[in-house]
Amino acid sequence: MTEPGIEFEVLATDGKARRGRLSTAHGDINTPAFMPVGTAGTVKAMMPEDVAATGAEIILGNTYHLMLRPTAERIAKLGGLHKFMNWHKPILTDSGGYQVFSLANRRSINEEGVVFQSHIDGAKVELTPERSVEVQNLLDSNITMVLDECTEWPVTEDMARQSMELSMRWASRSKAAFEERSGYGIFGIVQGSMFPELRRESAARLVDTGFDGYAVGGLAIGEPQDEMFNVLDITVPALPKERPHYLMGVGKPDDIVGAVRRGIDMFDCVIPTRSGRTGQAFVRGGFLNMRNARHSDDSKPLDAACSCRVCANYSRAYLHHLVKAGEMLAGMLLTLHNLHYYQSLMEGIRAAIADGSFDEFVAKFDAENDAGATVAES
Amino acid sequence: MTEPGIEFEVLATDGKARRGRLSTAHGDINTPAFMPVGTAGTVKAMMPEDVAATGAEIILGNTYHLMLRPTAERIAKLGGLHKFMNWHKPILTDSGGYQVFSLANRRSINEEGVVFQSHIDGAKVELTPERSVEVQNLLDSNITMVLDECTEWPVTEDMARQSMELSMRWASRSKAAFEERSGYGIFGIVQGSMFPELRRESAARLVDTGFDGYAVGGLAIGEPQDEMFNVLDITVPALPKERPHYLMGVGKPDDIVGAVRRGIDMFDCVIPTRSGRTGQAFVRGGFLNMRNARHSDDSKPLDAACSCRVCANYSRAYLHHLVKAGEMLAGMLLTLHNLHYYQSLMEGIRAAIADGSFDEFVAKFDAENDAGATVAES
Repeated sequence: MTEPGIEFEVLATDGKARRGRLSTAHGDINTPAFMPVGTAGTVKAMMPEDVAATGAEIILGNTYHLMLRPTAERIAKLGGLHKFMNWHKPILTDSGGYQVFSLANRRSINEEGVVFQSHIDGAKVELTPERSVEVQNLLDSNITMVLDECTEWPVTEDMARQSMELSMRWASRSKAAFEERSGYGIFGIVQGSMFPELRRESAARLVDTGFDGYAVGGLAIGEPQDEMFNVLDITVPALPKERPHYLMGVGKPDDIVGAVRRGIDMFDCVIPTRSGRTGQAFVRGGFLNMRNARHSDDSKPLDAACSCRVCANYSRAYLHHLVKAGEMLAGMLLTLHNLHYYQSLMEGIRAAIADGSFDEFVAKFDAENDAGATVAES
Repeated sequence: MTEPGIEFEVLATDGKARRGRLSTAHGDINTPAFMPVGTAGTVKAMMPEDVAATGAEIILGNTYHLMLRPTAERIAKLGGLHKFMNWHKPILTDSGGYQVFSLANRRSINEEGVVFQSHIDGAKVELTPERSVEVQNLLDSNITMVLDECTEWPVTEDMARQSMELSMRWASRSKAAFEERSGYGIFGIVQGSMFPELRRESAARLVDTGFDGYAVGGLAIGEPQDEMFNVLDITVPALPKERPHYLMGVGKPDDIVGAVRRGIDMFDCVIPTRSGRTGQAFVRGGFLNMRNARHSDDSKPLDAACSCRVCANYSRAYLHHLVKAGEMLAGMLLTLHNLHYYQSLMEGIRAAIADGSFDEFVAKFDAENDAGATVAES
């Protein structure tokens, strides 16, 4: 890599679905890819080597959390986020915007950026597009995300337009602030809520500025799945085919399969990790609530067809016991299994696209899912 | 192993300190040995393979916790405790007595045994010497401990005698109830508080009954270290040299070194695991409180001379950050380091006894400890 930015190669396509490879200064990422979330410099309840062993090639770090504690400046002095958290593969960081906007009445927004109160010590902090890029640079993030305004849902078209236009001005400022270098990139984020015209206009403006990749934002915030898919049907065709497409904050396994079918290459979501810490296990065709007493004498693994360490070595009875006893190992093992489930799903998706059988893959996945929702929790 | 019971071989001695090997149906244990505590079927915050990787060859399971949840009968049906918790090396179980007696006003004792209220659902449960042995057998414990009464401290000699005599009657009943088989054993427990005559009498009565090993109980309950060492000076010489000597519930690193010097072969304690979950790290010569802000910019590992995964890969600054952020990984990494510290200590002790340099080992340990208490927390 001698060119600035990050390389992306589409290796195969099947319909709109793409099998690709992204190259960064810290290694390659096979796409479609799922990024486990490492909020505060740790994928919760996981040793980083175990995250890598599930097949994850990239994780997401949260700018909001890290800029407040331990601070980006401190992480930079300690050698960057990869070294700090002992994760030596690629890292994508969000802009911090999503968390700041969720602070509701503890933040105020203007053209310059957003001022908010820290949830840790109440201090007033300013986050501008330029500061967000600076923080992500201090973290040594391989993929920087532009600061955007998270448009509420539902929203009027007029408000959605104002919000989108602000985000597009911020995207240009973010790009201008970003220091281009080989193996590092910056992604723009398409906004526009559920309005097709706004989405198309947003995509066009970002393409005009020019980014290393394009994310679809403002989804997975409570809207029904078909509305999310409608937005993808409109938005993805408006994005450059030769650049990666990232659907932010998504999602459940069936969201991911449907989004890959619509041309999405990258995903992140807290679902597999958070579910693991609350006693939920993803299995083919559904999920299991390990708190349920019906597991107490069950010597079967979570999923007999799963190749993970948890399914090889532990019974549902044991996992149920750990959950009931409030043991940390419950969250550790269920998170490990869930991340393995997600990475296996992505591996299956990539293999199916590569050999042109993605439709069959989707049909089989849907059939299992329809049957399994009952099977798993009956 | 064709004889009933467990074999024990003294491989070397240095003064009263012994380097030995205990052989069970699930493998050998090199002594002096430290047993991490796996209370409720898990060494808290640890994957079992990581416990083994620290060098641990045996863990302790708690009869009280397991008999109440998930129940010993359930664990037996699921193939025993080793399989249940995915720990395939030896397991020693306590009798349940210590936890029951700590229930204070929720238990009542008589000649037959003790009746207590479960801390989980308030149910009335009876624990007799015979039931404790039965539960430990259902768990498939390699080393069963007799039920004894935990004598309070301080206590009058008269009360200590009554308590010791009850424990000795219970020890005989425990031995009678124990089903002898190859690779499995039962240990008696010497009581008698801080009274030399009572300790000697208790030891003699246990030896008369005959056990696979002998534990010293009723210590590490608040008494000063020199009182504990005094009891060992009196008690250990009264125990058969050809059988293992186990000091229950001990202790801090200097307690262990002092007890090995007095002829103790086995230890268990929650200190390394519990300390890990509360942000404490053992290092040569003392310990570090990782909550302390002085660590926030410190790029050094916990202990530069430590060979564990935590010291190889993480800075004090990162561990401080995890502790402050309340991340599970803090407890996971600090527990891993602390167990590695304890197992390294035991390895050093064993090597020193084997080559006749245990006095030098102790002198070096004491010197580090005297200097380190200041160094570590200055």
